[in-house]
Amino acid sequence: MPSSLQPASITHVSLGDRSYDIHVTSGAAGDFAERVTRAVPDLTHAVIVSDEAVLSDWAAPLAKDIADRGIRVSSLSIPSGESSKSIAQFDRLMQWMLSENCDRRSVLIAVGGGVIGDLAGFAAASFTRGIRFVQVPTTLLAMVDSSVGGKTGINLPGAKNMVGAFWQPSLVLADTDVLGTLPERSFLSGLAEVVKYGVIDDAPFFGWLEANATKLVARDQDALRHAISASCQSKASVVGADERETSGRRAILNYGHTFAHAIEATAGYGTLLHGEAVSIGMQMAARLAIALKLCDAGLLDRQTRLLEACQLPVTLASADVDAMLPVMMKDKKVAHGKLRFVLPTKIGHVKLVDEVDESLVRDAIHNCA
Amino acid sequence: MPSSLQPASITHVSLGDRSYDIHVTSGAAGDFAERVTRAVPDLTHAVIVSDEAVLSDWAAPLAKDIADRGIRVSSLSIPSGESSKSIAQFDRLMQWMLSENCDRRSVLIAVGGGVIGDLAGFAAASFTRGIRFVQVPTTLLAMVDSSVGGKTGINLPGAKNMVGAFWQPSLVLADTDVLGTLPERSFLSGLAEVVKYGVIDDAPFFGWLEANATKLVARDQDALRHAISASCQSKASVVGADERETSGRRAILNYGHTFAHAIEATAGYGTLLHGEAVSIGMQMAARLAIALKLCDAGLLDRQTRLLEACQLPVTLASADVDAMLPVMMKDKKVAHGKLRFVLPTKIGHVKLVDEVDESLVRDAIHNCA
Ligand SMILES: NC(=O)c1ccc[n+]([C@@H]2O[C@H](COP(=O)([O-])OP(=O)(O)OC[C@H]3O[C@@H](n4cnc5c(N)ncnc54)[C@H](O)[C@@H]3O)[C@@H](O)[C@H]2O)c1
Ligand SMILES: NC(=O)c1ccc[n+]([C@@H]2O[C@H](COP(=O)([O-])OP(=O)(O)OC[C@H]3O[C@@H](n4cnc5c(N)ncnc54)[C@H](O)[C@@H]3O)[C@@H](O)[C@H]2O)c1
Ligand SMILES: [Zn+2]
Ligand SMILES: [Zn+2]
Repeated sequence: MPSSLQPASITHVSLGDRSYDIHVTSGAAGDFAERVTRAVPDLTHAVIVSDEAVLSDWAAPLAKDIADRGIRVSSLSIPSGESSKSIAQFDRLMQWMLSENCDRRSVLIAVGGGVIGDLAGFAAASFTRGIRFVQVPTTLLAMVDSSVGGKTGINLPGAKNMVGAFWQPSLVLADTDVLGTLPERSFLSGLAEVVKYGVIDDAPFFGWLEANATKLVARDQDALRHAISASCQSKASVVGADERETSGRRAILNYGHTFAHAIEATAGYGTLLHGEAVSIGMQMAARLAIALKLCDAGLLDRQTRLLEACQLPVTLASADVDAMLPVMMKDKKVAHGKLRFVLPTKIGHVKLVDEVDESLVRDAIHNCA
Repeated sequence: MPSSLQPASITHVSLGDRSYDIHVTSGAAGDFAERVTRAVPDLTHAVIVSDEAVLSDWAAPLAKDIADRGIRVSSLSIPSGESSKSIAQFDRLMQWMLSENCDRRSVLIAVGGGVIGDLAGFAAASFTRGIRFVQVPTTLLAMVDSSVGGKTGINLPGAKNMVGAFWQPSLVLADTDVLGTLPERSFLSGLAEVVKYGVIDDAPFFGWLEANATKLVARDQDALRHAISASCQSKASVVGADERETSGRRAILNYGHTFAHAIEATAGYGTLLHGEAVSIGMQMAARLAIALKLCDAGLLDRQTRLLEACQLPVTLASADVDAMLPVMMKDKKVAHGKLRFVLPTKIGHVKLVDEVDESLVRDAIHNCA
């Protein structure tokens, strides 16, 4: 890559003819147009779909930079928030794309957090049965999780992510500068998924996180780039081994999530952010692993200290076991009526455990209260 | 296959791990439940989506046969007609599937013509990012064309098939008995696509059609089974070479269609059925090929006689050249502002021709008036 572009840490996601790169940079948003035109051949029409919260700071400048290259650009902003992952917004987006004369060669660029990436990704998968797309994640969660791996989709009333497609992007551009405007709680919440990769897949990274948590919380750019790249590498390797969630490997990404979904569903909507629930959920999972003698208490100690250093909650005084259990039973990870969990055996390793006794699950929740 | 099943002519669609069989039978609808359970492993929940016009004759008996095997069945009927290929019906179908507790292991069975196959196929592609599905085509067009090849989708206001997915079925079950209730015009219209396969891909089949057109028009079961199987074989081989319409090979299926779409758009909605427009469109294409010295006049003669024997229109007195041309220019098959056509060189062979002079196109349309 010529020197005109700032250096980027590049993670390659290896999926045959659906392979792509994730560029992690700092202060290089001015390069995004150039990076897009290099990675996406024959770009003649860019369709920029952005979260209204990042429209003026990030989507509008990108639109201008692309237009300055003589490429036709259409832009639409979407209201912020989970409720935009709806069939109504999907319909609106499709009709707008038609009115903008999009065709099979148009390229959709999603600028936003997981909400915009999921909605716009499904739009890209479906418009004329699929057009190319680029992810420009603007939340930490989107950078380390939702923009990588090709899961796209929208919600139905009462059920998340029920409608969607597996559709891989052609490029992911994550710049740490973009996180500058992200509210503190949202930022810290994203760190929970970062810690998750350390526990499930990458012991050296877990050690690095222990040494650098303070820098991360202070949003140190070098530390952030490393954390985002390492997270993307873990996710990319898991996704490369199980692109469409058929072999079971992809399930390890759900560490802490069976508990977290039950916490989110019962704690009252909006009480906890997703990453906060994941943080507590990983604590419950670690306790369950100890009870099952899968790992020693030292793992829980290290995980607790790291999550606390990331200013994430590690207990939930209000946890309502009786409300949580039925939710967990309905979770997709239940096999034939028996609870199934992703549980750590040591830092960097997890296994899938079926047929866990309900009483042990209760204890794990109680002990996090 | 054990003798308990009536014999079927089976066409294999070869698409790697997305391969599947098309069974063409007569009087074997009573076997459909058995065929589905054999082809689709671990069937525990069947979701039957049918055109209301075939609900009582074909969908309800199939639902009963499957339920009699101890398999849970959910059934929904969809209003007949192109307007059901909408986001509104898609939304309704998704919410209904959720309310029926569908999950990733559910199998969707589409019973109907191209409208139901396209809508239900897109629903199958999208529900939890993709569930298995089976096509039970009930129109001739669906048996020889829309149920084979994995194109699914819905319309946007003013634009057909703009939203969808490539999603292959696990099995296609076409029984000629089901055509018994199909109105005459719809049946004959489907024959236009059958003739198309002869011209573009299969000269011996074209000869067979010339010898058997009378039997086909009389809906002779043996003749119909052969015609449907041969058509599916042609389509399967084209689709196998170009599953996602990227290499250009799949474009040959559009023989006659550039003209046909312009006819349909300008003749007034509902004046002509799709196959009738394709019949006239193939005549225009053959005339254009002659003018370009790609083939001799004998091809047009044979094609004309065969289409007439199938009781299909071969001229259009009201053809409005000035209205048709702008529509053709907007067609997806226009390359860089120049008209692109699929044109015959001899029976069984076509080629893609770019940069055709507008005056020759005008003549071809005029000469079919
Ligand atoms: N596709 C996947 O694999 C995957 C994985 C995990 C989560 N998800 C989905 O991701 C979604 C959550 O993503 P999220 O946490 O990014 O939420 P989000 O997209 O709703 O963003 C959170 C909030 O931050 C605002 N925001 C975004 N970027 C900003 C910035 N740079 N500065 C200031 N404000 C900004 C948004 O307007 C929003 O209010 C959920 O819908 C979840 O289902 C998808
Ligand atoms: N997916 C593809 O590759 C592909 C290819 C070609 C066409 N198509 C689509 O297919 C659709 C047209 O399909 P179609 O021609 O089957 O139309 P259709 O599905 O609308 O069926 C035509 C009519 O026949 C009725 N009908 C269906 N089966 C019947 C039966 N056995 N007896 C009596 N009535 C019956 C229907 O209710 C309807 O009124 C269009 O939307 C077109 O875009 C898709
Ligand atoms: Zn998560
Ligand atoms: Zn057609």
